[in-house]
Amino acid sequence: MRASVLRGGRMVYRDDVPDPVPGPGQVLVQVRACGICGSDLHFAAHGAEVVELSGELAGGRGMDLDVGRDVFMGHEFSAEVLEAGPDTDTYPPGTLVTSIPVLLSEKGVEPIVFSNSTLGAYAERMLLSAPLLLPIPDGLDLKHAALAEPMAVGLHAVNKSGIDPGETALVIGCGPIGIAVVAALRVRGVETIVASDFSPKRRELAALMGAHQTIDPAQGSPFDSVKARVVFEAVGVPGIIGDVIRRARRGTRLVVAGVCMQADTLHPFFAIGKEISLQFVNAYEPDEFAASLRALAEGEIDVTPMITGEIGLEEVGAAFDDLADPERHCKILVTP
Amino acid sequence: MRASVLRGGRMVYRDDVPDPVPGPGQVLVQVRACGICGSDLHFAAHGAEVVELSGELAGGRGMDLDVGRDVFMGHEFSAEVLEAGPDTDTYPPGTLVTSIPVLLSEKGVEPIVFSNSTLGAYAERMLLSAPLLLPIPDGLDLKHAALAEPMAVGLHAVNKSGIDPGETALVIGCGPIGIAVVAALRVRGVETIVASDFSPKRRELAALMGAHQTIDPAQGSPFDSVKARVVFEAVGVPGIIGDVIRRARRGTRLVVAGVCMQADTLHPFFAIGKEISLQFVNAYEPDEFAASLRALAEGEIDVTPMITGEIGLEEVGAAFDDLADPERHCKILVTP
Repeated sequence: MRASVLRGGRMVYRDDVPDPVPGPGQVLVQVRACGICGSDLHFAAHGAEVVELSGELAGGRGMDLDVGRDVFMGHEFSAEVLEAGPDTDTYPPGTLVTSIPVLLSEKGVEPIVFSNSTLGAYAERMLLSAPLLLPIPDGLDLKHAALAEPMAVGLHAVNKSGIDPGETALVIGCGPIGIAVVAALRVRGVETIVASDFSPKRRELAALMGAHQTIDPAQGSPFDSVKARVVFEAVGVPGIIGDVIRRARRGTRLVVAGVCMQADTLHPFFAIGKEISLQFVNAYEPDEFAASLRALAEGEIDVTPMITGEIGLEEVGAAFDDLADPERHCKILVTP
Repeated sequence: MRASVLRGGRMVYRDDVPDPVPGPGQVLVQVRACGICGSDLHFAAHGAEVVELSGELAGGRGMDLDVGRDVFMGHEFSAEVLEAGPDTDTYPPGTLVTSIPVLLSEKGVEPIVFSNSTLGAYAERMLLSAPLLLPIPDGLDLKHAALAEPMAVGLHAVNKSGIDPGETALVIGCGPIGIAVVAALRVRGVETIVASDFSPKRRELAALMGAHQTIDPAQGSPFDSVKARVVFEAVGVPGIIGDVIRRARRGTRLVVAGVCMQADTLHPFFAIGKEISLQFVNAYEPDEFAASLRALAEGEIDVTPMITGEIGLEEVGAAFDDLADPERHCKILVTP
């Protein structure tokens, strides 16, 4: 079957990937849409480093992955049930589903994110876990359903912040994660949501997705004009956390949703003097994923403005390049 | 009158300091005891840097202090009321008191910590603010009462952690702040308090002050043997936060009570992957200071083992040197 795989740092189209065979508890599905995530771009550029750090994070057990071999990716998807594995009770063929990107197998619990063996959704077909399937509610666009995953990341960050609707939120960085945070803040009823990004296109998108005010940091630090005590950092490059700590107000709760993969330097003195807290966040809980899907189905979040491109499996490599330009793209969907 | 002042990085004895005159709302007191704080040692060594960073922290207004002139210090004290300023209603002369180290004056609110003009407690006499005075409860040793201040720092850190008695606490660093954290954890009823320090003397002191277990990190990282989700960092040197982030368990709440004055480097990836939170803390609220004084008076905390020296004003300079050795000293009291 057809798939797009990471090979030597580039996404490569293949038409010779063997069809996966569902085991007990597994379901073979036809991928209908898959969003390209920033973490995929990062892995393409810095895979070896991610593998090394992940190995250390896991306590030295190592991530079972060889970047010298083809890597399957794609973890924001919607799909159609084709066939259940042996002794597997699941939805009938043709049911439209999504799932948290985890495959349960005899080997245990495997994230569907980067793997030499487990297919991701940059492919015609893949395996999912029957107990984890969520049917896509009637009337919800399949392409929108694929974005339940990144929107859940934003929801989780907002939940971890514990923000009250009366508190002002400042979101720094309006890529897909920042946008997902803005949308989740709006669903929570936060009355003042300020979003900051250098890109005019991204600021426009943030406003469409729920920001009450947008700021161009090239015109001055958002901290000069916004009295926020809850700040979401969704940039993920070295220096951002240190900058927030220097500029933020006393008692600021900083939620770090950006994924900075390099070492970073900051001056604890400023965080101490202002009693700042940093909550680092990652992914979401299964119930947050389900809540995110529900918010899309009920029209609380409309992701239409986020989808800026739609491509086939042959074009994934080019799309990875295109996503570097914030003026052109937010979320590109692969529809195999 | 006599005082010990910071001059060119050294504590110098003077017998020619003019007696302060209480203004409205102020009270002249006789200092009875003053603890030497680690922040005083740090200021002696790195005063210019502290002034610069504090100025930036204050939003560029600058700290009104010239390290080229004599600096008054001393903020952990007990004292005896001598005389009230004009139109000032306060306790009668002879009353034993303590106070948060803040002087209210026509100029506003001034911390009694480092100043070219406002006396601290490394002096025979000083000014305090009538509304802030707390009488020392009957039966509480004057020298112990002076330590209400550092013990309040520990209480505040523990309050900010939100630790439940059933959660295991790991305290890294058993200098005065780490010890104050241990004592406050014990008062809160935390059932498993583990304290880590390279110094045998400090580990012994931590056990006396309430730690259920002590660890020598030279024998292996405390994170290898202790399953704690609440960690107090009371060392305050570059690298500690990054080390905790690498080694700590998923979901760890790290309370940063150590005061690292230099830039620090860490790897956000580990904090993200484990959803660690960092709460930086500083000082205490007035009600925590009062609670700390009460805990001392009621015998919930006995600071006797912490007091490892008692000196006169002439000996403050030598005491600053002696405090560098963790095997000899925890807290030295100046009794003018």
